This record gives sequence, C-alpha cells and structure tokens, in this order.
Amino acid sequence: MGKVSVVGIGPGNYENMTIKADMVLKECDIVIGYTVYVDLVKDRYPGKEFLTTAMTREVQRCQMAIDKALEGYKVAMVCSGDSGIYGMAALVYELRGDKQVPEIEVISGLTAACSGAAVLGAPLTHDFAVISLSDRLTQWELICSRLSYAARADLSIVIYNPRSKGRPDHLKKACEILLDHMPADRVCGIAQHIGREGENIRILSLRELKEADADMFCTVFIGNSMTKVIDGKMITPRGYREMKE
Amino acid sequence: MGKVSVVGIGPGNYENMTIKADMVLKECDIVIGYTVYVDLVKDRYPGKEFLTTAMTREVQRCQMAIDKALEGYKVAMVCSGDSGIYGMAALVYELRGDKQVPEIEVISGLTAACSGAAVLGAPLTHDFAVISLSDRLTQWELICSRLSYAARADLSIVIYNPRSKGRPDHLKKACEILLDHMPADRVCGIAQHIGREGENIRILSLRELKEADADMFCTVFIGNSMTKVIDGKMITPRGYREMKE
Repeated sequence: MGKVSVVGIGPGNYENMTIKADMVLKECDIVIGYTVYVDLVKDRYPGKEFLTTAMTREVQRCQMAIDKALEGYKVAMVCSGDSGIYGMAALVYELRGDKQVPEIEVISGLTAACSGAAVLGAPLTHDFAVISLSDRLTQWELICSRLSYAARADLSIVIYNPRSKGRPDHLKKACEILLDHMPADRVCGIAQHIGREGENIRILSLRELKEADADMFCTVFIGNSMTKVIDGKMITPRGYREMKE
Repeated sequence: MGKVSVVGIGPGNYENMTIKADMVLKECDIVIGYTVYVDLVKDRYPGKEFLTTAMTREVQRCQMAIDKALEGYKVAMVCSGDSGIYGMAALVYELRGDKQVPEIEVISGLTAACSGAAVLGAPLTHDFAVISLSDRLTQWELICSRLSYAARADLSIVIYNPRSKGRPDHLKKACEILLDHMPADRVCGIAQHIGREGENIRILSLRELKEADADMFCTVFIGNSMTKVIDGKMITPRGYREMKE
C-alpha cells in the first residue's frame, strides 16, 4: 500500500533531524523534493529513487508524490525545516482531497524558529509570531499589517524569507513598520545557515537590522520588550527569576 | 570540562526526539528536569544520575544544573517540546550571566506547535502566533491583548496551556476575545497527548471550542480565515493552487 510521508528534515544537518524522519527516509522507496533539499539527504539514503522539481513547482511536486503513492510506492516528500510550517503538507492534503487514498502522514521537523533560536540563545521563551516576508503567495499589505499587529502585541517576531530575488528591500520596509511601535534599540538577531556549513549569528539593534544585509539563508528574530543580550546571546526572559518562590 | 545542555525532548515519544537530543542524553552524566519529563526518558538512558524538582522550582532546577556543570559534569537539562520555546534555556543563561562558565548548549526539540500541527493535518502553513494562556508569569491583560491583536492580524494562533489548576475558564475567555474578531464557525483544532499514549484530535468550530473541555495536555489551534477541513484534517492553504504556474 503506497503512502505519502511529508517529512520535515529540519535545518539541514543530520543531527537535527528527528529519529522518526530518519526512519521514514530509510524505509521509503522514493524521495521527492526541491533539488536543494533532496541534495541535503541524498548521500545518507542510498538505493532510493530521487525525484526533484524546481523551486516554484510545488503543485507538480506534490501531485507527483500522490501519483507515485497511488502506484504503490512509499514516498517521502522532503521539506526543509518543518513539513507543516510553510511546508508542503497542506498542499498534499488539498490535492488529494476527500479521496482518502493514498494515506498521508505528516512528520514534523525543527522549523527555523526553533533551530535558529537555539543558535542565537533563547529569544522565544515567551509568546511570539512567525511571519514570512515572501509576497509570492501573500499580499504585501497583509504582511505589513501582520507585522504591525505583532509589534503592538509585544510578541517576539520571527521573520522567514527576509529577502529573496526581486525583493531586496523587504526587510528594510518591515523594520520601518516595526520602528513605529518599538524603540530603535530593540534587541534583534540574525541566524544564517542554521545547522549547515558557515552557520553564524549576529546580534544587533532594530536600527542596525534595518540596514543589515540578510540573505535568503537567514532567519531574523525581533525581541520583545524584555529581550536582552547576555554574553553575546539573545535572551527573552519569561519571569521565573522575579517570582516569589 | 562540565557543560549544561538544555535539551528539548519533543512531545514525549522517542521517535519525535532529534538525533542530537538522543546523542546528548546518551553522552551526559546527569539528567535534570521536572519529574514528569525525566520519567519520559529515564528507561532509555540507564546508568545516568537523575535529579528532579517539582513543577514550580524552575530557578532551583536550573541552578542545580549550573552547579553540577561547574563541578565538571556533563548535565542534560530536559524540557518537553523545545528547550527554548517556553523552556528553560533563557533561565539557564540568566542564572549564569556573563561568567562564561559553564558552557551552555541549547538543543532544540519539536515544540507542540509543530508536533500538534502534524497530528491535526497542516494548520500552520501560513503566518501564525504562539500564545500561552498561563498567567503564572504573565499578566492576564497582556495575554488578552495579544490574542486580540493576533486575531485582527488574521494569524493562525496556537494556544499553549489552555487550562491548568486554578484557571478553568481561561480558554473560554480567550475564545470570547477571538469571537470579537472572527466568525463563530472558524475552524479550530485540539491535539491532546501528542506523541503519547491516548493521542487524539478534535476538529471543531470556534463556537464549540468556547465550550470545549481542553485540559493541560492539550494544545489548541485556531485557524486563519483560509483554514478549512479536508477529510477530517485541519488545513490552512498557502495559496500554491491559485498560482499561475
């Protein structure tokens, strides 16, 4: 019986995959995904069939996974980070619809909010929002409105897709919106190449972030009003120390 | 040289731990944590020293981890879900301060937003907020304000700690706030005992959620305006199908 497992492989290194994701990749017949993600896992799982599609061919890729599962294969559809959070799981469900076959299984993985936070210190100890600056599928006005509400709510904010081809100034514009509601010295952080070669972090103010160069391999963290820097790390306290114990 | 590794063990089952978390637990000398979480991993890592503290003794627990690391031990401080998101990582950094020893390492794990979403379907394909209803360390008014802003931003919302002892009606109150900005038939979901015995999900409307019984083992998901039910699963599309390909 064929099946589509939509597998979040985490930030990219083997150690940050879940044991379950590793098991599913070992047991599957076919690995399908965007070329870059398939390349991240290819060497570790020999003997599989690997099928890739280009970055913007999501519908084609998910339909291919469903079709192969209907033929009886165990298909692992790999996504970077989590398979649900900005991942392919929803699209696989949508394309299959109510037909019940093939079986769909969602295997979650570490999203960049988790893995990036761990590299930066602990910026997400309190309530937070995750917002993508990609306007490929979302109106830019809605993204701006979400940033503004999240800032007013004093949520920490994790920004995915801070930059990509054709929209070099989105992060700068986002910072301008945030600066309407936050002080310019708000603690921010950038995590780049999380779990991959060249992993690095930068801790900087919101003022500096506005002018910063953050490419498509970066995840950006905006602190809440309590966030501070401790020994070069970005830390959002939850308030345990202030408690009467 | 001693070290504190703050380890997110995910929802509770072995398969949903990361390979790195498993490695760190295998290699450490001492496992420290809240009793319930230590019990989840105890049998799998024999030969370790296990130290536990009660639920509200977070400062004591983290200080114990630091002290043991200063004595030269490799300490794994376990947290359920992620070690950063509502976890102990920030407190360990705060208690150590700028002293640079012992070394602190944050090992992220699957937070309930990821693992719960995977069980429910794919509710977090688009921007979302994570908000805890626990007012032990946070003013209830701030929690209410965050819910209201998140709803107005049309973010999907993940609610942690929907209920605990002494605050049985927080989820109901939260739903009342959300109902000011969302239709009563908004698709919602509850994931209970994620990755543990008795795992189950409920898909329901916001109106039904307001009256629902959600205990402290539940994580609650509120859809955004696009969220729908497909074959009993909670699905938030991202918009790939509407794209011109």
